[in-house]
Amino acid sequence: MTSALLTDFYQLTMLAAYHEQGMTDTAVFEFFVRKLPPGRNFFIAAGIESVLDFLEGFAFTAEEIDWLAGLGRFKPAFLDWLGKLRFTGSVEAMPEGTPFFTDEPILRVIAPLPEAQIVETRLINLLQFETLIASKAARVRLAAGDRLLVDFGLRRAHGAEAGLLSARASYLAGFDGTSNTLAGMRWNIPVYGTMAHSFVQAHATELTAFESFARVHPQATTLLIDTYDTEAAAATLVPLARKLRAEGIAIRAVRLDSGDLLAHARKVRAILDAGGLHEIRIFASGNLDEYEIVRLLAGGAPIDGFGVGTRMNVSADQPYLDCAYKLQEYAGRPRRKRSEGKATWPGRKQVFRRFDTQGMMVGDVLTVAGDAQEGTPLLACVMRDGKRLGPTPPLAELRSRTRTQLAALPEPLRRNEATAPYPVIVAEPLIRLAAEVDAFGH
Amino acid sequence: MTSALLTDFYQLTMLAAYHEQGMTDTAVFEFFVRKLPPGRNFFIAAGIESVLDFLEGFAFTAEEIDWLAGLGRFKPAFLDWLGKLRFTGSVEAMPEGTPFFTDEPILRVIAPLPEAQIVETRLINLLQFETLIASKAARVRLAAGDRLLVDFGLRRAHGAEAGLLSARASYLAGFDGTSNTLAGMRWNIPVYGTMAHSFVQAHATELTAFESFARVHPQATTLLIDTYDTEAAAATLVPLARKLRAEGIAIRAVRLDSGDLLAHARKVRAILDAGGLHEIRIFASGNLDEYEIVRLLAGGAPIDGFGVGTRMNVSADQPYLDCAYKLQEYAGRPRRKRSEGKATWPGRKQVFRRFDTQGMMVGDVLTVAGDAQEGTPLLACVMRDGKRLGPTPPLAELRSRTRTQLAALPEPLRRNEATAPYPVIVAEPLIRLAAEVDAFGH
Repeated sequence: MTSALLTDFYQLTMLAAYHEQGMTDTAVFEFFVRKLPPGRNFFIAAGIESVLDFLEGFAFTAEEIDWLAGLGRFKPAFLDWLGKLRFTGSVEAMPEGTPFFTDEPILRVIAPLPEAQIVETRLINLLQFETLIASKAARVRLAAGDRLLVDFGLRRAHGAEAGLLSARASYLAGFDGTSNTLAGMRWNIPVYGTMAHSFVQAHATELTAFESFARVHPQATTLLIDTYDTEAAAATLVPLARKLRAEGIAIRAVRLDSGDLLAHARKVRAILDAGGLHEIRIFASGNLDEYEIVRLLAGGAPIDGFGVGTRMNVSADQPYLDCAYKLQEYAGRPRRKRSEGKATWPGRKQVFRRFDTQGMMVGDVLTVAGDAQEGTPLLACVMRDGKRLGPTPPLAELRSRTRTQLAALPEPLRRNEATAPYPVIVAEPLIRLAAEVDAFGH
Repeated sequence: MTSALLTDFYQLTMLAAYHEQGMTDTAVFEFFVRKLPPGRNFFIAAGIESVLDFLEGFAFTAEEIDWLAGLGRFKPAFLDWLGKLRFTGSVEAMPEGTPFFTDEPILRVIAPLPEAQIVETRLINLLQFETLIASKAARVRLAAGDRLLVDFGLRRAHGAEAGLLSARASYLAGFDGTSNTLAGMRWNIPVYGTMAHSFVQAHATELTAFESFARVHPQATTLLIDTYDTEAAAATLVPLARKLRAEGIAIRAVRLDSGDLLAHARKVRAILDAGGLHEIRIFASGNLDEYEIVRLLAGGAPIDGFGVGTRMNVSADQPYLDCAYKLQEYAGRPRRKRSEGKATWPGRKQVFRRFDTQGMMVGDVLTVAGDAQEGTPLLACVMRDGKRLGPTPPLAELRSRTRTQLAALPEPLRRNEATAPYPVIVAEPLIRLAAEVDAFGH
């Protein structure tokens, strides 16, 4: 459960002013991304379930209120009120796993101004990170085709929660599993794991390390063969694997984790095949991302699966999104920020998505909520009066929905390179509203 | 408290083999960074206190052991043993805030092999992230001179823990405070906060927003002036600030958050000065990092403080470190990994640092532990038998120590550009040991 105090201090200084001024009318905020990072063609919405959990549990503890009182910056009446503050508003959102594009809101909060404001920091923190990783992981899935993909990134994720949420986001986006055991327990994600170099090093010889490991894990053995010399290890393995096979112990795969993965995979495949071990798969890891996977597969690498870590879990080529959670309406009046390079579309908005007869996406329309447009509306109410409208969907269900959505992405958008932008038309009523807000002075 | 299950699944498959084989002799692992990222000249050690907390609390819950049992991959005897596993080893480390260089270990674990192995994932997760951010934040501090520096990055940090740990790491490295309120409470870090654009937008006019905010926070008001038109807002502010000043309410600063910060800061400074408001400071935020701060200050920007967010909190130009936690010794015998591009120095190591008569760092010697070299040894024992040797030092004390350490960095290393590497000499005894290990076959 996230502490309500995990927020920017300015939320509290603003709330003190709102409380004193009685500014508690309904506010509408929307979360959206302003720009596609270089080389990217789409985003995958994620983090919405985490946000709903956070909103349902929103509350300050007595200890937190006491600590705030000790700062000497807030009046007791405000702190009393803050201690009782809960989230009582509504949320409208796209389902997790939906592809989306710049300026399209993926989540809207409708609540009394102080409630909609105080949740800003954590809401951006969750939506930007999970969307960042789901968007990156979807590219890795598109690059890898149907090959096995496992999240290996916990160790270089930015802390514990980043490791957990990136395991979840990558599974949502199509990975087959994770090395992150706690994520496996929490969301029922398949867990994968083999051995480290230290396991080989701790044994007197590589061969004894392999044999011991295989005997302890007779059903699911993957052996790491690059600790000293990759091809020598593969050659050593051949007689051992044949002996174990005769005893009913199968080596499922070997893992390569360093050097020229393309060259090693070819040589190791040849050694295993020459030894009659066609059934042993080759699994590769080490500095992988969608670019490297495309390169390896284009080179004909006989690799059956990939462990993808750091570069996916920190979205290394673009470790943050230019995103915002902006006030769109207060007390019934649409609002718009006009700061240089940061102007936004005002009011409550809806996105309509159009598909061709094959079910492929052909274009979106961004318009004001309530405007009827052709296509499927993407935002729907998921929380009312601070309560979820339905149970949390199982992650596997969201994952399978994401798979369908990815299959509907136009082919050029699936590539690693930036292409002509997916068409998002801003409808006339929204353009009109922006002009009206500007004329009014906000 | 971190769950022990927050680990790579391969740690558990390896432990099952170690348990079955009775491989519980003493292992020595060291954490180090292999490469300086482009443009960087040093690292700042951080995350050590978090690691010690983790090791002291290490334990699986009964629920976690039950979940593992349900996987059907482990024998009951192993799971019984795992449920009782605690960390009983020793730790030697550099103090947090120490500058260090490639291949220098900053932390060593000496423990029975299974204990030293199972903690690997979380240990890397903490050390790499906190070191990454402290190293980045130290560069920002060196760029900003004595100006006010506040961490603004919680919203785009990778989850909750990343936000908390980056607030801590940046304060350690010399920031003055953070917007992250929970971090303020947890580590006694000064919290800073003003207002968001939404505050201005929610009011009928910018002027009413400014006045209301100032009256609610008469001691510490910073006003955000770029929601619509920065210079127009500054002009509007002049008569208001003079009126409030007459009533004893001081506007401390204005904040600029968009557009050309250099040009805006100059114009706003001129407007404020012309209005006799010399005491109002200018605070800038928005896409800042050490490069942008150097550029602004080189251009003579009249900026008194900076809010630095995203690019520092995700270390945007280099969001991960090429680091490792490697087995250096098992059962009394030094070990060495020789994978391509990933070979390591074997055995237990010590770093000696030499200073000139002015107290400036002049060079390090990397050698085997126990070898006597000139200089100050940097690693010292901080945990024995699974217990810290002393109380956790207050963060402010570590921060002040870091300040001294940064002041001893040779001038060229403080710049934003890569320079000639700081001299780290590998001593003869370590070179000899590596040759011996290779000759032996490990």
